[in-house]
Amino acid sequence: MVIELILMATKSNKAIKISQKHLLGIQDLSITDVNFILSEAKQFINLNRSKNKKLDTLRGKTQINLFFEPSTRTQSSFELAGKRLGADVMSMNIVNSAIKKGETLIDTAMTLNAMHPDLIVIRHQDSGACNLLSQKVNCTVINAGDGRREHPTQALLDALTIIEKKGKIQGLKIAICGDILHSRVARSNIYLLTMLGADVNIVAPTNLMPKDLEKFGINKFSDMKKGLYDCDIVMMLRLQNERMNSSFLASNREYYEYYGLTPDKLDIAKDDALIMHPGPMNRGIEIDTNLADDINKSVIQEQVELGVAVRMACLKIFCN
Amino acid sequence: MVIELILMATKSNKAIKISQKHLLGIQDLSITDVNFILSEAKQFINLNRSKNKKLDTLRGKTQINLFFEPSTRTQSSFELAGKRLGADVMSMNIVNSAIKKGETLIDTAMTLNAMHPDLIVIRHQDSGACNLLSQKVNCTVINAGDGRREHPTQALLDALTIIEKKGKIQGLKIAICGDILHSRVARSNIYLLTMLGADVNIVAPTNLMPKDLEKFGINKFSDMKKGLYDCDIVMMLRLQNERMNSSFLASNREYYEYYGLTPDKLDIAKDDALIMHPGPMNRGIEIDTNLADDINKSVIQEQVELGVAVRMACLKIFCN
Amino acid sequence: MVIELILMATKSNKAIKISQKHLLGIQDLSITDVNFILSEAKQFINLNRSKNKKLDTLRGKTQINLFFEPSTRTQSSFELAGKRLGADVMSMNIVNSAIKKGETLIDTAMTLNAMHPDLIVIRHQDSGACNLLSQKVNCTVINAGDGRREHPTQALLDALTIIEKKGKIQGLKIAICGDILHSRVARSNIYLLTMLGADVNIVAPTNLMPKDLEKFGINKFSDMKKGLYDCDIVMMLRLQNERMNSSFLASNREYYEYYGLTPDKLDIAKDDALIMHPGPMNRGIEIDTNLADDINKSVIQEQVELGVAVRMACLKIFCN
Repeated sequence: MVIELILMATKSNKAIKISQKHLLGIQDLSITDVNFILSEAKQFINLNRSKNKKLDTLRGKTQINLFFEPSTRTQSSFELAGKRLGADVMSMNIVNSAIKKGETLIDTAMTLNAMHPDLIVIRHQDSGACNLLSQKVNCTVINAGDGRREHPTQALLDALTIIEKKGKIQGLKIAICGDILHSRVARSNIYLLTMLGADVNIVAPTNLMPKDLEKFGINKFSDMKKGLYDCDIVMMLRLQNERMNSSFLASNREYYEYYGLTPDKLDIAKDDALIMHPGPMNRGIEIDTNLADDINKSVIQEQVELGVAVRMACLKIFCN
Repeated sequence: MVIELILMATKSNKAIKISQKHLLGIQDLSITDVNFILSEAKQFINLNRSKNKKLDTLRGKTQINLFFEPSTRTQSSFELAGKRLGADVMSMNIVNSAIKKGETLIDTAMTLNAMHPDLIVIRHQDSGACNLLSQKVNCTVINAGDGRREHPTQALLDALTIIEKKGKIQGLKIAICGDILHSRVARSNIYLLTMLGADVNIVAPTNLMPKDLEKFGINKFSDMKKGLYDCDIVMMLRLQNERMNSSFLASNREYYEYYGLTPDKLDIAKDDALIMHPGPMNRGIEIDTNLADDINKSVIQEQVELGVAVRMACLKIFCN
Repeated sequence: MVIELILMATKSNKAIKISQKHLLGIQDLSITDVNFILSEAKQFINLNRSKNKKLDTLRGKTQINLFFEPSTRTQSSFELAGKRLGADVMSMNIVNSAIKKGETLIDTAMTLNAMHPDLIVIRHQDSGACNLLSQKVNCTVINAGDGRREHPTQALLDALTIIEKKGKIQGLKIAICGDILHSRVARSNIYLLTMLGADVNIVAPTNLMPKDLEKFGINKFSDMKKGLYDCDIVMMLRLQNERMNSSFLASNREYYEYYGLTPDKLDIAKDDALIMHPGPMNRGIEIDTNLADDINKSVIQEQVELGVAVRMACLKIFCN
């Protein structure tokens, strides 16, 4: 059904509009929205693989990347996506330097808003920062990760990667493993994958397992060997050292022993199971380094590749 | 008269040329120069509000933003201004990172100059750094703030904002309040607003009041309630904590009591008085937070908005 | 012979191709490659001096500048080179900020590679980092300096500067002076200048003199007055304080006394000898400040200027 919807969307893009002004989270999107975004993104995959990667779609538009947390891949992905669509892109890292003078998020946002951007892509350490921002500005806000809440473009690129590799999401058994509690990637993926009909297993130590996700019909496991049984997709999460109280875990070694993806644990999943990771990876902590690089099993590079395509689709669709 | 000059300028832009190669300070500009810049800027206001914000005016030109002090709004404003005019813009933050190897301002400038930029936009903590730079390079130098000396584009955008809101500057009573001593914004505004015929009041604690501004025909006040009497414009300054010796002030609370803009103090100004601030604001120190956000009185967002237009005008006019 | 080759190359650029996919070091290049690059670079010198410095040669291409060491001039030079050729340029400084999360060089490179750049320009503190990178990515890798190993575009711009000023390199006597041991600039220049037929003198304190360069037919000197005798070119190196164990040198003052370029030492070279320095300079340590600025003797600014042209040539030729 998903594929049919995507085909429909591809045939009649002009008739479809997105239901939201901003992209703040997967929870705000309808299945039609999602399929519209994914079908647009598919068209950008080939562009990004071609010799000439430049369009004029967003020429004359201004995109501001406003990053309050450091990021290599997400910020780069959005920057390249905007530039390839012809937008004027300005990237601002407010991790150490700015806001030194004590300005608030809202004052910063209002200031940038007055410069008439068309798009603000924001990453912020506080859950809901992007929602607050979206109420204050005139332009489109794209959430590039806010606290523990949502990271919608990550989930969309994960979905696109699965569809490209498996042909569908509906009916697949997908395990999401690791530090679920602190993970916006996990949250956005749970919302999106269950919406698209996947059977989602959550695998985490009990103290890294959130208590608020029951209503999404997911299955919870604290034993990875049980959680990976018969899975089509094993999605590992980054161990968020910087966001975690040291008392959560005994040691990296113990974490690897029980929750790191190793060949013997992967054997429990289906023979053709694929490995995913949003990056950056802690090799030897949440994932065996050889598995991470196994091009027959790992689609981690494809995730990054399709990430640019998904972000191009989001910038194009939400900008108006 | 100002408006007439602006209208004249609008009608015959091609005949007018700027008298200076560089934009180092308001004090170097003639009233004709100022009106030429403001009339050009007016044309960019609508461009910035439109869907397509891109011109080819500076295509093929190279603009380097060379910032030795951190800045969110001024640097962003210049970056967007240059990009919207089609220039290749390169922004360099030399606050912490560069000059680590011990290179001097002049060596940095000479190096960049050899790369044939057409414009260098510089902010530096030393008064006169931009003048020194302008003697060493072949390209146009735009001062984006140097020490306590001048911040000419800030004054120009303030003037444009007043003209847009009040229709004129001539004859208006304008109070500039706060840390005048350390403020390049105050200096550039005093030069420009008196040139354009305003009646300027300076309000500051005696130890933050400079001694060298008498010749500009300004009125000095240490009592804010006297200084704001009958004013059309109340321009608040940022309390420059980082530039101020701690001995200047007893406490932020006391400063707010005597020199913070509060509703009761604003009542002393005209009923339709407008509030301005160059940002970033210290809410609750130099300005009441509700007043800052009062869209009927505060034109702080308009200042930022028109700032991009003014900088586009300056980049276009001074680049040759 | 060199000039003839260059003329030949200029006449028939289309027939010539570079022998390498990547630009990792001078040692990988043939003399035909070098002359091809230099002849292309000559064509960009005038472009950079003209009013319109923009081409569409690399429109639709993505260039990523990946700098693991701080750099003002090299990074700026590559950024402007790419932008003037119409590429989408993304600059990433991974000095302090990124890789904070512990990602490896290879993971960073693989991630960026998945975004389909056409060119990665890399500077890294480890010798051979760019070679490692080039084995992992699909796109062209340009070495912007790796550890003590090579800095090929610096040597190419130095060669172009000498050819522009002296008409040739063959037969010239060229002294390279200073901290040879830690200098990638020295290594790349030794490879290139000897390849192009220069007679190269190396001048360094014995503990800063490498032991592995005999096979290139260079002459070694620990006495600067002997090493500069009859030279056409005196190329000074930056004293790499940050890379040097403090035990190498007694003091800056003593270094200047014995190895700093001063008027009396320069007198030993030919009357029309030219001074070069890759920058940034330590004035008063490795070079007398007045000599550095003497426009009749110093071609330091020309080096920077031609650096942009050389990098444009390299980006154009190696991108495919």
